[in-house]
Amino acid sequence: MADIDTVLAIDLGGTNFRVGLVDQNGRLLAKDRQPTRIEEGPQVILQRIIDSAQRLREGAAPLRVGVASPGPLDPFEGVMLMAPNMPGWHNVRIRDILEGALGLPCVVDNDANLAGLGEQRYGAGAHAGPGGGRVRNLVYFTVSTGIGGGAICDDRLVRGSRGFATEFGYFILDMDGSTEHAGVPGNLEGMCAGPAIARYAQQRALTGRATKMMEMVGGVAGQITAKTVSEAAAAGDGLALEIVRRTGRILGYGVINAIHAFDPEIVVLGGSVTLMGDLLFDPLRETVRRYALEPYRETPIQRAALGDDAGLVGAAALAWAS
Amino acid sequence: MADIDTVLAIDLGGTNFRVGLVDQNGRLLAKDRQPTRIEEGPQVILQRIIDSAQRLREGAAPLRVGVASPGPLDPFEGVMLMAPNMPGWHNVRIRDILEGALGLPCVVDNDANLAGLGEQRYGAGAHAGPGGGRVRNLVYFTVSTGIGGGAICDDRLVRGSRGFATEFGYFILDMDGSTEHAGVPGNLEGMCAGPAIARYAQQRALTGRATKMMEMVGGVAGQITAKTVSEAAAAGDGLALEIVRRTGRILGYGVINAIHAFDPEIVVLGGSVTLMGDLLFDPLRETVRRYALEPYRETPIQRAALGDDAGLVGAAALAWAS
Repeated sequence: MADIDTVLAIDLGGTNFRVGLVDQNGRLLAKDRQPTRIEEGPQVILQRIIDSAQRLREGAAPLRVGVASPGPLDPFEGVMLMAPNMPGWHNVRIRDILEGALGLPCVVDNDANLAGLGEQRYGAGAHAGPGGGRVRNLVYFTVSTGIGGGAICDDRLVRGSRGFATEFGYFILDMDGSTEHAGVPGNLEGMCAGPAIARYAQQRALTGRATKMMEMVGGVAGQITAKTVSEAAAAGDGLALEIVRRTGRILGYGVINAIHAFDPEIVVLGGSVTLMGDLLFDPLRETVRRYALEPYRETPIQRAALGDDAGLVGAAALAWAS
Repeated sequence: MADIDTVLAIDLGGTNFRVGLVDQNGRLLAKDRQPTRIEEGPQVILQRIIDSAQRLREGAAPLRVGVASPGPLDPFEGVMLMAPNMPGWHNVRIRDILEGALGLPCVVDNDANLAGLGEQRYGAGAHAGPGGGRVRNLVYFTVSTGIGGGAICDDRLVRGSRGFATEFGYFILDMDGSTEHAGVPGNLEGMCAGPAIARYAQQRALTGRATKMMEMVGGVAGQITAKTVSEAAAAGDGLALEIVRRTGRILGYGVINAIHAFDPEIVVLGGSVTLMGDLLFDPLRETVRRYALEPYRETPIQRAALGDDAGLVGAAALAWAS
């Protein structure tokens, strides 16, 4: 493989990390996945990542390393400032550590930004531009335990002054709403991320309306998760369907705010909540068609194409773009 | 002046147009202002602009022409698609017409975008960056008859796929609110632009609470304008002060959405409504400090520095950046 140009890509997640060898077309030539085991702490985990990268690069000559990391993160210095779900990861100088160990230039950005970049370069946006080329402007939402975002403007990743841009999860959509979630009134994440969907479903299930969801959790409303809602909706449960439609509608308002801000050629949504599929995307698209300003209404809205490899492929895209 | 590098700048407004000769530091070396007289139509008006530019360029050797125009606009082709307040301006190829007449390369963008660019290069952002240089990331709001926006990311103007980006006036802030304004639920412009402030003040004045505003308009509530509110608030009128504070608070929510999207070093607000000054900016800043996500709370929020010349200076900035 030494005759093909490649980069090393690393996706550092709270559950698993992934390491890949990726060519200029975003193809994964080799890949390794391991449980992160966050209890081991940054030093041990980074060493396992380095060992994995050393094995994958054998026989190849990767040019650079790209890393997708949970945020908040300083992408200019490659430092993970903290990771809410990974205790001990505080001011970890990921870039310097990997450059030292691997002897290659290293670039780091947050996973939502890079999933967006991956979708633009190699996923849903790769052939959606004029002449079948890639789009130059794309907005990305990831909707799972939290809601993150990414934007590519004129073919460049939007980072902001400190790398904290495109936090679409904190769009205020209901200014007189609750500040319970993160202190930001009526924000998108507080209404549409997985835990918010679960909490809302639990409340609704307790009001007494018959729902399959209660059977699925043995009558204990507090056990209802976003996955319960998704499965019950797929099985035709009325209340679950109503909750999924509501989620799609509110996500639609968030998407409208991002469209009005970035005027993208395409909007892409990924993350576990989007596995709800058309049950979620239909009301979402309907909301945009109905309530966006006229010239933005027909903006295509699509499911992410890269699935679980989005972060990894995005990290490779960043390495290629550097 | 032929020994100094200059550009020609044109600001095409519904009331007046301005033409200027501008150096690399954003200084206006010469300037002409004329009433637009929209009833004369595009051909006559553009000819008057060309004549003015020809006079201003005498003895100088400008390199390029920059034009700030009302939108919607195609900045890539320099075509004004339509101008809601200027009848007859429909698909006017401003760039081609001016290039033909002046024999210079011409660039066009919308006035809010360019006011933002002007503030970044030569106004509030010019010395607010590290080491006293310009900031590289700035968000701009103009608040007057409508609300427009502009954003500079990593030193480049954000345009979006068609030049329709940064329409902050249509941020949804109250998703279950009225769709009366432009069909977009509870949007910023429908609550905080001049006409919205006037409408709200008229409603409140009619509820019977004593207010100077009613005296100022001879008892005819329908005559209250945003200027009435501003003047009454400055004179200490309780109801007017309450309305200005409410406007500042809602503008603050819109600013939060833009900050979360762009992570700028500074937010700048201009336009006639911002003449309300600290009465408006105090509650606005207070809202951002209280309700933005923690790392964004201290983002500086400032009045525009360029005043009525913002569009003109911004047009020059665009010409210099091209």
